[in-house]
Amino acid sequence: MPSYAAPLDDLRFLINDLFDMPNDPDVPGTADVTPDLIDAVLEGGAKICEQVFQPLNQSGDAEGCTWDNGVVRTPVGFKAAFDEYVGGGWHTLSLDPAWGGQGLPFFLSMAMTEMTVASNHALSTYIGLTSAVIGSLRGFGTDELKNTYIPPMVEGRWTGTMNLTEPHCGTDLRLMRTKAVPQDDGTYRVTGTKIFITGGEHDLAENIVHMVLAKIPGEDEGLGAVNLFLVPKFLVNEDGSLGPRNGVTCGSIENKMGIRGSATAVLHYEDAVGYRVGGDRAEKQGSNGKGSSKGMAGMFAMMNAARLGVGMQGMALSEVAYQNAASYAKERLAGRSLTGPKHPDLPADPIIVHPDVRRMLLHIRSFTEGARALAMFAGQQIAKAGRQSDEETRKAASDLAMLLTPTIKAYFTDMGFDCVNMAMQCFGGHGYVKDHGMEQFVRDARILQLYEGANGVQALDLVGRRLPTNQGEAVRALFAMIQKFVDDHKDDADMKPFVDPVQDGLNRLIGASAWLAQHAPANRDEAGAGASDYLKLLGTVLFGYMWARMAAVAQARLAAGEGDKAFLEMKLHCACYWMTRMMPETALLAERVAAGADTLMAPEAAAF
Amino acid sequence: MPSYAAPLDDLRFLINDLFDMPNDPDVPGTADVTPDLIDAVLEGGAKICEQVFQPLNQSGDAEGCTWDNGVVRTPVGFKAAFDEYVGGGWHTLSLDPAWGGQGLPFFLSMAMTEMTVASNHALSTYIGLTSAVIGSLRGFGTDELKNTYIPPMVEGRWTGTMNLTEPHCGTDLRLMRTKAVPQDDGTYRVTGTKIFITGGEHDLAENIVHMVLAKIPGEDEGLGAVNLFLVPKFLVNEDGSLGPRNGVTCGSIENKMGIRGSATAVLHYEDAVGYRVGGDRAEKQGSNGKGSSKGMAGMFAMMNAARLGVGMQGMALSEVAYQNAASYAKERLAGRSLTGPKHPDLPADPIIVHPDVRRMLLHIRSFTEGARALAMFAGQQIAKAGRQSDEETRKAASDLAMLLTPTIKAYFTDMGFDCVNMAMQCFGGHGYVKDHGMEQFVRDARILQLYEGANGVQALDLVGRRLPTNQGEAVRALFAMIQKFVDDHKDDADMKPFVDPVQDGLNRLIGASAWLAQHAPANRDEAGAGASDYLKLLGTVLFGYMWARMAAVAQARLAAGEGDKAFLEMKLHCACYWMTRMMPETALLAERVAAGADTLMAPEAAAF
Repeated sequence: MPSYAAPLDDLRFLINDLFDMPNDPDVPGTADVTPDLIDAVLEGGAKICEQVFQPLNQSGDAEGCTWDNGVVRTPVGFKAAFDEYVGGGWHTLSLDPAWGGQGLPFFLSMAMTEMTVASNHALSTYIGLTSAVIGSLRGFGTDELKNTYIPPMVEGRWTGTMNLTEPHCGTDLRLMRTKAVPQDDGTYRVTGTKIFITGGEHDLAENIVHMVLAKIPGEDEGLGAVNLFLVPKFLVNEDGSLGPRNGVTCGSIENKMGIRGSATAVLHYEDAVGYRVGGDRAEKQGSNGKGSSKGMAGMFAMMNAARLGVGMQGMALSEVAYQNAASYAKERLAGRSLTGPKHPDLPADPIIVHPDVRRMLLHIRSFTEGARALAMFAGQQIAKAGRQSDEETRKAASDLAMLLTPTIKAYFTDMGFDCVNMAMQCFGGHGYVKDHGMEQFVRDARILQLYEGANGVQALDLVGRRLPTNQGEAVRALFAMIQKFVDDHKDDADMKPFVDPVQDGLNRLIGASAWLAQHAPANRDEAGAGASDYLKLLGTVLFGYMWARMAAVAQARLAAGEGDKAFLEMKLHCACYWMTRMMPETALLAERVAAGADTLMAPEAAAF
Repeated sequence: MPSYAAPLDDLRFLINDLFDMPNDPDVPGTADVTPDLIDAVLEGGAKICEQVFQPLNQSGDAEGCTWDNGVVRTPVGFKAAFDEYVGGGWHTLSLDPAWGGQGLPFFLSMAMTEMTVASNHALSTYIGLTSAVIGSLRGFGTDELKNTYIPPMVEGRWTGTMNLTEPHCGTDLRLMRTKAVPQDDGTYRVTGTKIFITGGEHDLAENIVHMVLAKIPGEDEGLGAVNLFLVPKFLVNEDGSLGPRNGVTCGSIENKMGIRGSATAVLHYEDAVGYRVGGDRAEKQGSNGKGSSKGMAGMFAMMNAARLGVGMQGMALSEVAYQNAASYAKERLAGRSLTGPKHPDLPADPIIVHPDVRRMLLHIRSFTEGARALAMFAGQQIAKAGRQSDEETRKAASDLAMLLTPTIKAYFTDMGFDCVNMAMQCFGGHGYVKDHGMEQFVRDARILQLYEGANGVQALDLVGRRLPTNQGEAVRALFAMIQKFVDDHKDDADMKPFVDPVQDGLNRLIGASAWLAQHAPANRDEAGAGASDYLKLLGTVLFGYMWARMAAVAQARLAAGEGDKAFLEMKLHCACYWMTRMMPETALLAERVAAGADTLMAPEAAAF
């Protein structure tokens, strides 16, 4: 059975030493937050994840969810664990106290996101979506909707869902068929079938708040007709008590590869009462010149938050898989070190003596810790962008967050899946049997590359939409930020092994960006052909930047005799791994971007 | 539900056009083989795989094997399918007719290996191991063992297994505890526990022939004490009829991630009667200077064959996953081509219009077809090495096979797993639910990187043992072979896009080999640190060589107006993909090899 210990040392290193977040005036909610409070929250959160969530992870997978005539039961223990978590207010750590939240800084809720996923990915999905719906309603709901639906979700009595996909329609929302017909009383009647609805039906909560995309008939038949509606499972009386069942039923749940404790529902809406969210038309946006509703903006805001969350899931699963692989590698005896026995007293050396095992572990660890740093950095930008800071700071943070969101979603989940697999590989054949729990991490992690927009779609979003915005203003600011760090440290001999590879990677990233800017306008397939490699290139360079920053802090603290020496030295080892083994890949990725579309587009479709 | 059509066109291209195998005097069994016979065998084999094996693949996974008090039941339908297959003699196509085989050339049995795995990986495991045990007995068994045990396996009434692993002991056979105590009558009594025994217990056959590694007490306690024993499930009377049950019982079967229709048994041996296989001591071998038994040589021969087979499994699963992904991509509608609608009559374009989808499909296909070619090439070398040809030809083929075996095992299964995942990715979220069958391919393929020696062990075997043999004579011959092809075609302008990248890759491979030869003798960790990347580098260059050869043949046939134009043009498209997107990776891999061991070995074990 796998184990999990929340990586509190690394979180403290990021929060305090790398980003000094408690003293960042642009991060909301830090004013009253003392180091002791941060520690208390991290330790309390770690405790519930380690002791309540994690022990249910394997049993939840083995049991799965069950569907019986529209009623869905979650695995044994999920309800009690869910109640304890939401009862403690852990899902609303950084929510405004005016809405019942704790008003703590974002980085604490990010730490909780990681810990809940690492300890129980399936169970965490119900929580993450509820937080996302609260956030969306706060931003785009009417006062009446907010006052009716937010408090029970904050109290953990109700949960939330996002409803986008239909059987024939995933990424391409234009194809949507679900209809929302306006009623005289201002409500809508929603009819259609939605699939892949995470937490769409379950027994954890009294009511479920579905956020549903649907078309209003008679309006523009394209994307412009798509609006966002709140459709509760049970209608709500004026006093907030539950009324009759609304016209939404769960037709079935999916039999999936993983996250088997997370109910993925098919929902049939039939004249269900819905309330429009963000009914006003937003400013015109997008290259097609069509306006879309504020509700769509609300859905997109929710999806951006969800994408960062999904990226973090890749990091979280990589962390727990790493911990178990490292433990196994230090215990399992096989063979002798190539340079002579390291434990002659034992019948064989532990496999951690083998360079190839260390290569795998360092790969996973340098990904995981690099990802944790970049996620925190992205969260910091999102927090700054949402705050009434000066406009220049706000715009810079917002631009960075725009670029980071799809990159983190796709890069963290592609790399995270590879890393979880590598951790399983450290177990040899034992990794393939269910007992050790490693294969569950692989099955669970596999959804990450698919949900919240398949990774290829993230790459196209990055390269096709986000990169060219304002003639690449955002990405140029990002280049300048990294260049500044390199310039600031290039005369420091100790930092040379860290800044030189970053400079090389940055140059290649700039070159690939220029190639796209030059070629994509004439043939948009060039952008599509290079999108995935470009995203990976950007991710690799961003990790290099994070590792160089972490190396600088680690070196400074070691020189000052501060902090945990072994911890800081391991940071430098991981930074070295990233620089020597991962940064060279930037050359390959840039070459692939510039390989262009011709080879890909040449075959006739029928030839495939 | 997924579909499968055996890739007969590609097999014919390889057999006839690329390798001209029916006319190769060094390939046994080709004398009487007419093109019509080859076609008949391929088509008959395809039919049973497509129509009998494949329909049981999903149901076999859903049902799995069951264990009840030592008795193991395979999924519904497996027994009838197995009987039909072995009853038709499909598992002994290239076995010597003197032993009841069909005496057909090896390439037909290789084609069958691929088709059985692609259509039903779990079911194929029982067959593949039985063939391996027949081969091992033929090479190393006494006449009595051969005459008793081979015919019932040829008839398909009995099956075979390999028993190496014990709970505490996988790769490191020195740690083995299973004992074989000599008896006065020349037999042995075998006692111990073996795990991960594929087909170790089941209901497909009347008897099971276990090939078991065990130590003879009192001999050298290291590897030298390990010998190979044949231990039947039921003892066999002199007339060949079944006698009493032997002292081997199935304690349980593993609950695994995939290949759930393949019974992976824990076998308890308690004073089981065993017969030594290859009892004489072989010549001294290995760097430790210890002699090992001929039985061990027999096991290693069986393992080499099994490694090629496992590599082919990666290719086979990639093929079937590709077929389903390509079909889906041509049917599923979402979005519009970036360069304008390609099907304005439809509500959206099929996703095959998107460059990133094509990138994934071309990646999978160029791997799969490159792998099929290289596997056939390796099989050709093995066939030549086993034939009484002239010594120079035999030695060259044997050396090549020595290098190709671990490379194919690890490279095909790492790439195969990635490709199967990519095929699943083409389905978006639909790939994650069981209905489409894509996630089963992923779960099934994941074992390949683990069994028959984890891929890291293959890499170390390649770099640590096979590469340095005779001062690198074998790999230098391989370099010369590729260089000759490049030189022969470098003045052909049409071939320039194919030979230039191969030349670059070859140069990098030579450089990485020189780096290892220079550094590894002084510090063997340098070999371990670069092993996996070196293996990948070798694999990438070998695929480049295969694709360049295939491109040359395709161009020649197109120029001559021969063959299927669309098929040959797609060959060139795939070759272009490999050259432009994959060959550049050789620079990265060579750089990683030369990155050395320091970064990996620097951290204390406790720091992980």
